[in-house]
Amino acid sequence: MKKSIGAQPIVYPAPVFVVGTYDSEGKPNVMTAAWGGICCSAPPCVSVSLREATYTYGNILERKAFTISIPSEKYVKEADYFGIASGKHADKFAATGLTPAKSEVVDAPYVSEFPFILECQLVRSVEIGGHTQFIGEIKDVKVDEDITKDDHPLIEKIAPLIFALENMSYYGVGKYVAKAFSVGKEIEKK
Amino acid sequence: MKKSIGAQPIVYPAPVFVVGTYDSEGKPNVMTAAWGGICCSAPPCVSVSLREATYTYGNILERKAFTISIPSEKYVKEADYFGIASGKHADKFAATGLTPAKSEVVDAPYVSEFPFILECQLVRSVEIGGHTQFIGEIKDVKVDEDITKDDHPLIEKIAPLIFALENMSYYGVGKYVAKAFSVGKEIEKK
Repeated sequence: MKKSIGAQPIVYPAPVFVVGTYDSEGKPNVMTAAWGGICCSAPPCVSVSLREATYTYGNILERKAFTISIPSEKYVKEADYFGIASGKHADKFAATGLTPAKSEVVDAPYVSEFPFILECQLVRSVEIGGHTQFIGEIKDVKVDEDITKDDHPLIEKIAPLIFALENMSYYGVGKYVAKAFSVGKEIEKK
Repeated sequence: MKKSIGAQPIVYPAPVFVVGTYDSEGKPNVMTAAWGGICCSAPPCVSVSLREATYTYGNILERKAFTISIPSEKYVKEADYFGIASGKHADKFAATGLTPAKSEVVDAPYVSEFPFILECQLVRSVEIGGHTQFIGEIKDVKVDEDITKDDHPLIEKIAPLIFALENMSYYGVGKYVAKAFSVGKEIEKK
């Protein structure tokens, strides 16, 4: 039996995106956001939704660019801090000791120590309600060399985090389950 | 050292959403999509991007509604099949033996056997490129009774799938890592 738990913004899995921007004075900033995902294959685009109150909101509108750095599990403390503190008051790179790297592709910084980076040019902003959705065209993807195989990033080595809103927790990625566009074929053949 | 792997639509984690709709004759259909996520807290909204060629695309525009059913790991075969076959030619519920349930909240069906359901009213469609993004307001969330604790769904019991594009595979959710809005506080206190 199913029960109603009311209208809530919950999906499984939700990601942990660390959004990198420069402010008007060129200070690099990062914030953590879980409302987003890929939204187009061609051109490749990603969306992330932010409240107007965030420091990052103004930075994206001004610079028309942002990065998404995916933290590994071992950086959970830093990723969580990036979602607690505000760039209006804090220098989050200095506080964590992590290193801002200037993207050569878009006008935004990313977190050097994180294994997987999307470099995005703003193409659209969509006001939905309390959140505005920023759609960025992915201009390049950068990955730590030691976590790729034949140029494919390996999810097990990236070890990304999952955000679970309903119990305010982070989880890791688990075991391989099955091959996509493959395991379902036996139903099709019936 | 980081290496460039080119502009690709990859994030970690990407979800496995099973999108439920009725066609013009009232036949329930489902398709699997990985391009989406929560895009607003208030009102709670979710986005999912589809190609115009899909059967679901026309159904959503006509009915202005869809559901998202989250499959557990044990339904990986059915979820994969839902992304391979097209509702133009196949009755995917009949082929899998799964049961369409009529939402009482929006004009769309969901998969009874899947543990976690979002019932959505279409509020916006955004043409991005090869994909159109459908933004749905979440009107209600339904969860199997035996996987909640104090009305909170438990991610370990839902056992959702993760889609990894780069090696065309599904993964499960792993272990608890840390408390959100908490583990990062010690950096803030420094």
